[in-house]
Amino acid sequence: MAEGKLDLVTPPPPAGNRGDTVTELLGQIADTGRDAARGGYSRPVLSGSERDLLAWFVEQAQRRGLDVDVDRNGIAWAWWNPSGADLRGSVVTGSHLDSVPGGGAFDGPLGVASALVAVDHLRARGITPSRALGVAVFPEEEGSRFGVACLGSRLLTGELAPKRALALTDPDGTTLAEAWGRAGMDPAHLGRDDEALARIGTFVELHVEQGRGLIDLDAPVAVASSVLGHGRWRLSFTGEGNHAGATLMADRRDPVVAAAAAVLAARQSALAHADARATVGRIVPVPGGTNVIASRVDAWLDVRHPDDAVTAAVVAEISERAAEAARAEGCELVVTQESFSATAHFDGVLRDRLTRVLSGAPVLATGAGHDAAVLAGHVPSAMLFVRNPTGVSHSPAEAVEDDDAEQGAAALATALEHLLT
Amino acid sequence: MAEGKLDLVTPPPPAGNRGDTVTELLGQIADTGRDAARGGYSRPVLSGSERDLLAWFVEQAQRRGLDVDVDRNGIAWAWWNPSGADLRGSVVTGSHLDSVPGGGAFDGPLGVASALVAVDHLRARGITPSRALGVAVFPEEEGSRFGVACLGSRLLTGELAPKRALALTDPDGTTLAEAWGRAGMDPAHLGRDDEALARIGTFVELHVEQGRGLIDLDAPVAVASSVLGHGRWRLSFTGEGNHAGATLMADRRDPVVAAAAAVLAARQSALAHADARATVGRIVPVPGGTNVIASRVDAWLDVRHPDDAVTAAVVAEISERAAEAARAEGCELVVTQESFSATAHFDGVLRDRLTRVLSGAPVLATGAGHDAAVLAGHVPSAMLFVRNPTGVSHSPAEAVEDDDAEQGAAALATALEHLLT
Repeated sequence: MAEGKLDLVTPPPPAGNRGDTVTELLGQIADTGRDAARGGYSRPVLSGSERDLLAWFVEQAQRRGLDVDVDRNGIAWAWWNPSGADLRGSVVTGSHLDSVPGGGAFDGPLGVASALVAVDHLRARGITPSRALGVAVFPEEEGSRFGVACLGSRLLTGELAPKRALALTDPDGTTLAEAWGRAGMDPAHLGRDDEALARIGTFVELHVEQGRGLIDLDAPVAVASSVLGHGRWRLSFTGEGNHAGATLMADRRDPVVAAAAAVLAARQSALAHADARATVGRIVPVPGGTNVIASRVDAWLDVRHPDDAVTAAVVAEISERAAEAARAEGCELVVTQESFSATAHFDGVLRDRLTRVLSGAPVLATGAGHDAAVLAGHVPSAMLFVRNPTGVSHSPAEAVEDDDAEQGAAALATALEHLLT
Repeated sequence: MAEGKLDLVTPPPPAGNRGDTVTELLGQIADTGRDAARGGYSRPVLSGSERDLLAWFVEQAQRRGLDVDVDRNGIAWAWWNPSGADLRGSVVTGSHLDSVPGGGAFDGPLGVASALVAVDHLRARGITPSRALGVAVFPEEEGSRFGVACLGSRLLTGELAPKRALALTDPDGTTLAEAWGRAGMDPAHLGRDDEALARIGTFVELHVEQGRGLIDLDAPVAVASSVLGHGRWRLSFTGEGNHAGATLMADRRDPVVAAAAAVLAARQSALAHADARATVGRIVPVPGGTNVIASRVDAWLDVRHPDDAVTAAVVAEISERAAEAARAEGCELVVTQESFSATAHFDGVLRDRLTRVLSGAPVLATGAGHDAAVLAGHVPSAMLFVRNPTGVSHSPAEAVEDDDAEQGAAALATALEHLLT
């Protein structure tokens, strides 16, 4: 299973901040991957900043005496195994370190930092588990570089074929295979990893809440019920590039016009189906000149609904209206599904157990996708959410109060203690 | 006036291609600034590729014994002055070497190459002019890097204030002042240059036609009548960045939706006014993630009409509808005029003289902006167009037949001979 030892430069221990709390740990990486142009953080998978974060994770795990390896899908694992147990059926927690472009400080890193602090709590409580506890860091959870969210967990579970993964390209045209190789990993080893998967007896991911549920409930921590089904579709409109001044309106085949109609159709279609969400947050005209009618536009459509049949219907509606707009403008449209995850309901027994040991923590659904939802199709999985006082996520405005962060890590420790003993 | 000698690395003379024809000259630069992603060429001002083209121009001008200098606005001048005349009131020809992103091979370089070949023709014809002939290369004609088209000629003529120019930024946030300094020029020297302007007694720019006029007329070369008034406006929509899955449709303030409505309004408004053109070819959502509701969108609007009052009315209509869409979406809109050029009519006497010496070449208007149109407000100016068999421009599909290119250079030589003797 193991891809081998990590060949990362370990940063020096931060002066005066050993990382004993979640806030201290996040403080150690507060300057890594800042995005001056967008605000917040841009930490795409396999970028310098994301590799720096991984090195930081390794250093913090090793400081805690955990054994670290990276598997063939780029998932980093840190093991606390004081009783030397067989790793099969372990309790695993963790999250991710990559971010959306211009994202917040907590989406991903909060779960990783809380997992490390939870190990400290378990030790401080004098727990000696008979099973191992793993802390996992999954790559490309956001899909912000190669387009497929939860890439690591999808590869691990076989939900994404390695051949398809290797051919994925980033906005610069670099393939995943190329980026993988440059990071010193062998792209030929990607793919379903039954041995790694068998190590996960139970998975628990802690995450900042992406919504206002805990604000309304006035509580710091919740247990997740479900993750909304979600998918991504690329709408590629092709027209005819030409001069913006010399080309009469009647002579145009302008893909930007067709894409604009698709954006409005997405909003209208989502509004027409209760609980549906449809978003175009990324749109790229080619060549992208002010005085140039574009020859092509790629627009990415994100659609979510609790009922996967409604998601499909919304996508079909939007695609139909986009195709009409393309025809009216003399353009071609190709719609490509880049990823899809059905609505995931977390294991009910596990959820109820965690709610009970967390003194009746509230139960909340989420509209955001997570590696835990991918794993939920294969192993009993759960999530904890920590209150976000702005309710905003995928934005520099995302926030967690220091006290809530520490309460989250303590709650995670309690949940893990319950599962380990 | 002169900024000083050019500090450029002169490329070695191309083996077996001395550049004796327009086609040979363009062949020498056929590999410079190719854009693998967009197709065609991306040669933004002050980029490596554009500097390479300038070095090529200097080498070809020096090979012809011309005296080259670069003025304080970055305009390169190559002088043929066999009679040692005062440079004031000279005949000047030339064009530009920068391109739109993913542009064609001829927009700009055809005029520069034809000017060099025209000097050869004049010499071969045994002409010894009593006045000097200048070949000028203007920087940032396309405005593809810093947003203001015809930057060099606007600075030269004082139509663009140096203070405003220096603060312009490129898509990476680099200011013109910074880029200017990095290119080894002093940004403090930018601005209106009466001495340089006084050297231009008459200006003639040869350019590939950006339209189908010469196809329809079955002629290789035309004389220009006018350049359509044109301007650029940046529409900046600000909303609230948030998570694409966790944010209900009703809770959104999505600037992409408002920008899409503005794109459709631009098309509708242009169609409602005969001869108007309105284009959005560049649109940038921030942060630009698939699973992220954008916090801001910048969309650039290009509007043109023969009657400047109609241009203003179209822009006002589009801005009003964009503002309505922004309000409906809870977003803010700021509209900024980045540039405007009134419709320019070329000097009628000069136009008629050129038509006569070119044996009744047809006269055509153009929808594309040019440095010649900026200069037309200050000195007698004219343009020649060379047939484009695709009619397409600002696209890799832009084309010129070899024979037409040589006929264009010969026609330019004839026009210049008439003006010089």
